[in-house]
Amino acid sequence: MYRTHTCGALRIEQAGQTVTLAGWVQTVRKFGSITFVDLRDRYGITQLLFNESLNAKLDAQPLGREFVVQATGTVNERSNKNANIPTGEIELLVTEFSILNKSAVPPFTIQDDTDGGDDLRMKYRFLDLRRNAVKRNLELRYAVNRSARNYLHEHQFMDIETPFLIKSTPEGARDFVVPSRMNAGQFYALPQSPQTFKQLLMVSGYDRYYQIVKCFRDEDLRADRQPEFTQIDCEMAFVEQEDILQMFEGLVKRIFKDVKNIDYTEQVKRITWEEAMWNYGNDKPDIRFGMEIANLKFPKHAFPTRNAAVFNEGTNGAEHAALASDFSVFNSAETVLAIAAPGCSEYTRKQTDELTEWVKRPQIGMKGLVFIKCNKDGSYKSSVDKFYPETQLKALADAANAQPGDLVLVLAGNEERTRKATSDLRMEMASRLGLRKNDEFKLLWVLDFPLFEYAEEENRWVARHHPFTSPKPDQIEVMINNEPTIADASKYLEHPYSNIKANAYDMVLNGNEIGGGSIRIYQRELQEKMFAALGMSEEEALHKFGFLLGAFEYGAPPHGGLAFGFDRLCAILGGSESIRDFIAFPKNNSGRDVMLDAPGPIDQKQFKELQIKLDLA
Amino acid sequence: MYRTHTCGALRIEQAGQTVTLAGWVQTVRKFGSITFVDLRDRYGITQLLFNESLNAKLDAQPLGREFVVQATGTVNERSNKNANIPTGEIELLVTEFSILNKSAVPPFTIQDDTDGGDDLRMKYRFLDLRRNAVKRNLELRYAVNRSARNYLHEHQFMDIETPFLIKSTPEGARDFVVPSRMNAGQFYALPQSPQTFKQLLMVSGYDRYYQIVKCFRDEDLRADRQPEFTQIDCEMAFVEQEDILQMFEGLVKRIFKDVKNIDYTEQVKRITWEEAMWNYGNDKPDIRFGMEIANLKFPKHAFPTRNAAVFNEGTNGAEHAALASDFSVFNSAETVLAIAAPGCSEYTRKQTDELTEWVKRPQIGMKGLVFIKCNKDGSYKSSVDKFYPETQLKALADAANAQPGDLVLVLAGNEERTRKATSDLRMEMASRLGLRKNDEFKLLWVLDFPLFEYAEEENRWVARHHPFTSPKPDQIEVMINNEPTIADASKYLEHPYSNIKANAYDMVLNGNEIGGGSIRIYQRELQEKMFAALGMSEEEALHKFGFLLGAFEYGAPPHGGLAFGFDRLCAILGGSESIRDFIAFPKNNSGRDVMLDAPGPIDQKQFKELQIKLDLA
Repeated sequence: MYRTHTCGALRIEQAGQTVTLAGWVQTVRKFGSITFVDLRDRYGITQLLFNESLNAKLDAQPLGREFVVQATGTVNERSNKNANIPTGEIELLVTEFSILNKSAVPPFTIQDDTDGGDDLRMKYRFLDLRRNAVKRNLELRYAVNRSARNYLHEHQFMDIETPFLIKSTPEGARDFVVPSRMNAGQFYALPQSPQTFKQLLMVSGYDRYYQIVKCFRDEDLRADRQPEFTQIDCEMAFVEQEDILQMFEGLVKRIFKDVKNIDYTEQVKRITWEEAMWNYGNDKPDIRFGMEIANLKFPKHAFPTRNAAVFNEGTNGAEHAALASDFSVFNSAETVLAIAAPGCSEYTRKQTDELTEWVKRPQIGMKGLVFIKCNKDGSYKSSVDKFYPETQLKALADAANAQPGDLVLVLAGNEERTRKATSDLRMEMASRLGLRKNDEFKLLWVLDFPLFEYAEEENRWVARHHPFTSPKPDQIEVMINNEPTIADASKYLEHPYSNIKANAYDMVLNGNEIGGGSIRIYQRELQEKMFAALGMSEEEALHKFGFLLGAFEYGAPPHGGLAFGFDRLCAILGGSESIRDFIAFPKNNSGRDVMLDAPGPIDQKQFKELQIKLDLA
Repeated sequence: MYRTHTCGALRIEQAGQTVTLAGWVQTVRKFGSITFVDLRDRYGITQLLFNESLNAKLDAQPLGREFVVQATGTVNERSNKNANIPTGEIELLVTEFSILNKSAVPPFTIQDDTDGGDDLRMKYRFLDLRRNAVKRNLELRYAVNRSARNYLHEHQFMDIETPFLIKSTPEGARDFVVPSRMNAGQFYALPQSPQTFKQLLMVSGYDRYYQIVKCFRDEDLRADRQPEFTQIDCEMAFVEQEDILQMFEGLVKRIFKDVKNIDYTEQVKRITWEEAMWNYGNDKPDIRFGMEIANLKFPKHAFPTRNAAVFNEGTNGAEHAALASDFSVFNSAETVLAIAAPGCSEYTRKQTDELTEWVKRPQIGMKGLVFIKCNKDGSYKSSVDKFYPETQLKALADAANAQPGDLVLVLAGNEERTRKATSDLRMEMASRLGLRKNDEFKLLWVLDFPLFEYAEEENRWVARHHPFTSPKPDQIEVMINNEPTIADASKYLEHPYSNIKANAYDMVLNGNEIGGGSIRIYQRELQEKMFAALGMSEEEALHKFGFLLGAFEYGAPPHGGLAFGFDRLCAILGGSESIRDFIAFPKNNSGRDVMLDAPGPIDQKQFKELQIKLDLA
């Protein structure tokens, strides 16, 4: 061993001992005939003191930043203590040292606040990884990994490895494929998830399975997606939805405790998908703050179970007489949504104009923004004063649950866009008001997703979660007893499949989906019906998923599970929304590893062995 | 939850309690008006008793093998106890039951001793996995995984994930490649190991890294190889070979303790590669038994440091006068090797003939076998009596360390073949004599491998371990100061590189290499010299490994590591030499997953997106 201690280990208690350290030179500071060197390793920094006697040797072998040095000496109490670091009370009075390896001048200094920009960081990732900021992220990642494994182990889960070279069954995302040399003309696929394997393991009786495992999707990379990513993948047999929710909120609470020392003792809040869409405008609401969306007028077909918004009368959709007005924007809009921004009633004209510009940006795409100031004195002031008398403004503000001092922001238009815009505006206002705190963590279960979406262009149903998700038990009959085909695609909402809810659940943390799963279909007949609903022929279903359908014939137990997005979970726990800094060697948005310069060309010999060639467009 | 207890949980202490179980029907036994059902899950088997009152219901819903059943009832003390299973004192007096899922008749019964043959097992792997034998293997695998992680965690190792989509750098084995859609005409490779990444992590200061990780090699599959396999991959910085040996023999001892409850307290034996070849004829000797190989005559060039075998005189190679004889087989042979099979002196003619046939099989390839019976009365009897008088037979037997009662087996011929044949014969005799016990475990470190082998056809050096392995510290100068090129390939043994020993080590368990590694090169100049020795041009080295050479310029610490073959380690601990039964979903010898029917064809759309096409020979 090149050292007796690490650079984070020594304390005043070791004063007088002779020790050997090894590490990297962080800084060199000369003061006349003595030199201080901060020596760094994974565990910390220790100050080395080179006094007069070593001067000649130091001059002959000068130390530079990032040199790798071994130093032996005596642990000394410092005269100038540094309370900011754990080793700050001591220094090493060096008696011998050697340079284990030199370093060129790094392209950026290895410090918390200098990273040289994204391109340089990625090219020199091995240097970037030395920075404290990145190191802390990887340490956190390992801590989450360890905590999850411990919890799952204690709950009888078994880590069982599933294969990486599998079969391409394009459903949903695009597969990465691997040409097979031994089976010319054929390809493996890399798994998008171990979904079917973990279900087979349930059929095999393994009962409680988990894996922290790489998955692959060949998708165009939106910001903060990676072609390879990691899941905490879990499955249980003989369970109902409630068992899964209990087990895995327990897992996340354990991670909070182990990694962040947070006692998350309250039961995780649960809302339905419909409530999420209704109250937050999206299916992964951030509930660290309120500002719930008020539906002032809503399209009849989307939420048939809802009734009464200020512009709707009961469920018959007639205009609310009390709010009759000439304001055609609201009158003609499909939907009108509002939020009450707390304490913003005194926004200036400049501020409200700026917000109006914000919602008109192409990414948001609204035509304008109506606001109602709920003054602290109980009066109301609005950008649509001339259409609505104060009593009507009050009715609108009340509907938005506004308090005196709040600013009500109202958006109107096409349902889907308006809902998304209001959701975005809610998040934006929360950011501006400091309500999205990195160190506050709010979990949420979103339940009862629709089983299907309808792809109008393709005139077929699409599985919202995936084709293995079970409908709610009381809706299995609806699925079995109705043919999935629809003559008129525009009337899909009238088809009974539209209303089938899935036994599916997402776990949301601070407005990010960190995990999701479902109770699975385990009956061959129902699974075949599902494949048919998705437009798969019997032959296609057998070709792609014959092994699973076959397995369901030999005693498949009821089962379900979920998968956590490990990269994202770590990022959020680390107070970041970028997963890239929590991955040791990430790829850029073109799927390239710029350090390796991969992907790259292959040899002619490889093409020949694989019996493929390029066919560039 | 569908159950209150598992099928392995109930004991006499629970008698009287009302419980619910769920599991698979193992057997149904009817006795008049009552029926016994063995219900099985991952945790065990519990006997269900259906009495008269449930008869009508059972007749209406008959239970078959592998049906999935939920049963509620009262825990009863059995009249007929079964001491062979932990739940054998009780049974469940069923009051209610339901069939959760039916099962077709399985293609083989789910029992320890019936597996339906290899093809059927693999096609119905989900049923095969239900068998106790396979389940125990996967449980052992998980136990090894858990034990390794715990040990490494306690020793400050961090699990850091390295990428799967990397760059193809064909060196040694063949890469699997993955066409990149976003970078048309370019390919990723799947990692053969995370070798360069773990070295970069050392450069980055992570100090102690591990991963239990899938690796990929596109090789023609010899028996018991898999195209994807798992390594326990480890690396440490600031270490010398001794540190690595200590750390990782500790790991294996910990696994022995946790998984097999074996206290392996003695220091693991160490031998050099040369001793292994000399005494056992191979580099992964099984030391559960002796029968070391005696070198009666050996080629001068191969072991220049050895001297004196019975047919060699000193180091000058002259024939030993005392053994002069007309026996041309020994006289003309390049090498003569012998083992003494303990207690076999009374082998019959039939037995010795059979052994002679065994060594003449094409897989062994020897022309014949000479034997010397060391009779218990002190006399000697041999198949070459007419060439050697008894005193000479005694000299040969003594050289082979034979005791009275042993049978000396002598092989002669070309060095390489004879050495391998003697090694094989040694293993065969040990098997026949019951000396290779599945429940005995003997570890061995093999050290000081040659750094290079010479590929005469290509006229270049080949790294015996891999190109990142460091020479012994005192031989670095030999490497740096000599040009690798050789004018006359046949004289490669005279080149100084022939004698360079690597700082490399293999861990051997019961005659299997379970792990191997090395201290790495961390100096750019030495690494460049290594690439040059392997026949790589500077451009090629930069193209393939520029990132690593670059990293070595910025303060690379001394480091080293090793990787365990996880599949093989599990198999040996499980008392098997076949890794396939320790992998949940293995591939066959053509690299196919017969359950999935993978690999398979891909869609035209996929070809088009990837801009490749088939080019079948």
